[in-house]
Amino acid sequence: MIFITIVGFTAATLTTVAFLPQLAQTWKSKSAKDVSMQMLITFCIGVFLWLVYGICIQSWPVIVANLFTLIFNLIILSLKIRYG
Amino acid sequence: MIFITIVGFTAATLTTVAFLPQLAQTWKSKSAKDVSMQMLITFCIGVFLWLVYGICIQSWPVIVANLFTLIFNLIILSLKIRYG
Repeated sequence: MIFITIVGFTAATLTTVAFLPQLAQTWKSKSAKDVSMQMLITFCIGVFLWLVYGICIQSWPVIVANLFTLIFNLIILSLKIRYG
Repeated sequence: MIFITIVGFTAATLTTVAFLPQLAQTWKSKSAKDVSMQMLITFCIGVFLWLVYGICIQSWPVIVANLFTLIFNLIILSLKIRYG
């Protein structure tokens, strides 16, 4: 059971921090033309719903992981809108 | 309880299908220089671990959503490797 929990937490951490290198790259290059706007919008809505789901089922790992994923992706989306 | 389940399924569907527009765009433009390689690799490992987690806890929604998300992102990663 501890193994399963560790796998879950590692999965949540990786799928959250994964967006930091994208954020850093877009910030530095000031270019996001190859990043799909439709992907960013759909993903942000989906992650927002995961956050709502986490709050509904009162799961702190789901809330925390999706809150950070949403913040990172909203910043990437704003950079996409700014730089195109 | 039905509301929470609908929110969860909608969230899972959106965060999975979100990667289809990215896949289509990269396929058509043959360019992925603005997409972070580090993000794709980290995200694929994370989603793979979600899949392992889903199998461990025997949750079909977690397994199905993450299997498709992994397939889509492995294709995007292969296009990134191919087109740079």
